[in-house]
Amino acid sequence: MGTRLGKQTLRLDSHPVIQAWASIAGAKEGNGPMGRYFDEVIQDEYFGEKSFEKAESKLIRETLAKILMKGNVSAGDIQYIFAGDLLNQCIAASYGVRESEIPFFGLYGACSTMAESMILGSLMVEGGFAERTVCITSSHFCSAEKQFRFPLEFGNQRPPTSQWTVTGSGGVLVGNSGSGPRIVHVTTGKIVDMGITDANDMGSAMAPAACDTITAHFTETGLAHDYYDMVITGDLGIHGKNICKQLLEENGILIQEILEDCGTMIYDTEVQKTNCGGSGCACSAVILAGYLLDKLSKKELNKILLVCTGALHSPSSIQQGESIPAIAHAVGIEMIS
Amino acid sequence: MGTRLGKQTLRLDSHPVIQAWASIAGAKEGNGPMGRYFDEVIQDEYFGEKSFEKAESKLIRETLAKILMKGNVSAGDIQYIFAGDLLNQCIAASYGVRESEIPFFGLYGACSTMAESMILGSLMVEGGFAERTVCITSSHFCSAEKQFRFPLEFGNQRPPTSQWTVTGSGGVLVGNSGSGPRIVHVTTGKIVDMGITDANDMGSAMAPAACDTITAHFTETGLAHDYYDMVITGDLGIHGKNICKQLLEENGILIQEILEDCGTMIYDTEVQKTNCGGSGCACSAVILAGYLLDKLSKKELNKILLVCTGALHSPSSIQQGESIPAIAHAVGIEMIS
Repeated sequence: MGTRLGKQTLRLDSHPVIQAWASIAGAKEGNGPMGRYFDEVIQDEYFGEKSFEKAESKLIRETLAKILMKGNVSAGDIQYIFAGDLLNQCIAASYGVRESEIPFFGLYGACSTMAESMILGSLMVEGGFAERTVCITSSHFCSAEKQFRFPLEFGNQRPPTSQWTVTGSGGVLVGNSGSGPRIVHVTTGKIVDMGITDANDMGSAMAPAACDTITAHFTETGLAHDYYDMVITGDLGIHGKNICKQLLEENGILIQEILEDCGTMIYDTEVQKTNCGGSGCACSAVILAGYLLDKLSKKELNKILLVCTGALHSPSSIQQGESIPAIAHAVGIEMIS
Repeated sequence: MGTRLGKQTLRLDSHPVIQAWASIAGAKEGNGPMGRYFDEVIQDEYFGEKSFEKAESKLIRETLAKILMKGNVSAGDIQYIFAGDLLNQCIAASYGVRESEIPFFGLYGACSTMAESMILGSLMVEGGFAERTVCITSSHFCSAEKQFRFPLEFGNQRPPTSQWTVTGSGGVLVGNSGSGPRIVHVTTGKIVDMGITDANDMGSAMAPAACDTITAHFTETGLAHDYYDMVITGDLGIHGKNICKQLLEENGILIQEILEDCGTMIYDTEVQKTNCGGSGCACSAVILAGYLLDKLSKKELNKILLVCTGALHSPSSIQQGESIPAIAHAVGIEMIS
């Protein structure tokens, strides 16, 4: 039933297993330094569909199919699927899992969705409510740009603090048996809003939330600051990562050496002109389901803390002068023999 | 740890308690037949704010405050809050709970959100992961109209199958002790899409999902069809309720006598000109946190099955010719001495 370690953290005593994982990414992501870790790279941003939204749904649908195949299970073996995305009314998720007939919980955690879904999915397993759950998310550069910023045809300039929404989908199968990376701790975030109002600088908005959750995690677990091989935030980008480092240092959390960010890893920012790096729900999802779980399963990494970061604003809330509420959820994943 | 009764249903052996509940509704809802059951009725649709979106956030914020007050607890006593709404990026929920500092799971289940949040909130309690969780949602006629349909100033005609989005917020405090109505069964929905493409006829789109979940509930629990005093769907409206009745009869689920719908109860549809009735996340939320829990706590009702129904489309998906995926989640609530 898990052991509560503080206001935000639970230790999962059964250590739910990440039994399988899969990722599909876009061409730009495929050309980046992480390209070889993805299960599939799509060259056509429409993925053979007639709209970017339908393409994004297909990313989820196909990633789910890969997860089931790699886990050697069928949809009927999954008790719950937790899924969400950035599109209005989360249509990538709902249309993406529509035909699966798996009992479905729709989530909205913006770019924190991968960790949010893994917390809930692993708790279902830990609680004995499910043998297997799937946790999955997506984002798409083109559907996000048209919804959050400008039509692509407009060709707007991008400010230096901007980030590039990752096209892709990543997900995991979490179960109560088998071998593989295990979910040992989960730290659920609370909303942190430091008053940032610039939707082109989400790293600054999200860094305090990441710091808050990481601080809670180390404080509540009592783990040494060098316990993990890597503490990896979701999509703070270059600027946000620097802020997060500084805030953690002020909190006395000395993990500067092991702090990484999926947003700074996914592109060659100089060559690929992505300014501060990657963002979007898929940013942490494809780095997790591509690079990180590969390294864990090969024991090149043994313990990581994945801290997915989300900015919970909308275009309307920004237009109405509101600041950006942010959240970060953390999942401690370990190889346990 | 709950007992699994089939693919979609769990029996919660600890019977998590609905310790407190609160509802705030708009003026039109206050003037309807359920008006006297709401904790507060607001006359100003802006609720003193500068936009409908901010008003909707305030509905959640104030309802949360009422729940905590009525439950005689502070925000620090709540381990998790599950919240969602209809607005793009679910800003009513995120801005509404922003200052609470409660670990937050954002949900998107459209109008099924009340039951979705209660399933997850009660499972956190059942699993021993939380002593107390809050489950809350909102909708607002004005913010929904401008986002999903037309600007209010346009004064468009409303087709006969249309429904009226409820302005309000409702929520519950679910805990592991105390007396009060208890959550005994939860049945998680899967997506059902029968090909309806008319966003002005969501009753038809959602009725098959309601039927699917209700059928699963009775089949998996083995409960007699007259076990409940009331089986109450979320917002099928007059037309959708009739379809649901017929579909249930075809499935051999004979609950026609006890089947009700929050959408048909909340307005005097003839006088208030709401066509097929109410809809929106708040429709089932305020009927639950107003009328139903009042009747249960007075033992005028003893066993109910709340079946919240959601249409998981977006304006974009409809414009792109997609049909409407629907879902229904069910929560069995009983008075147990």
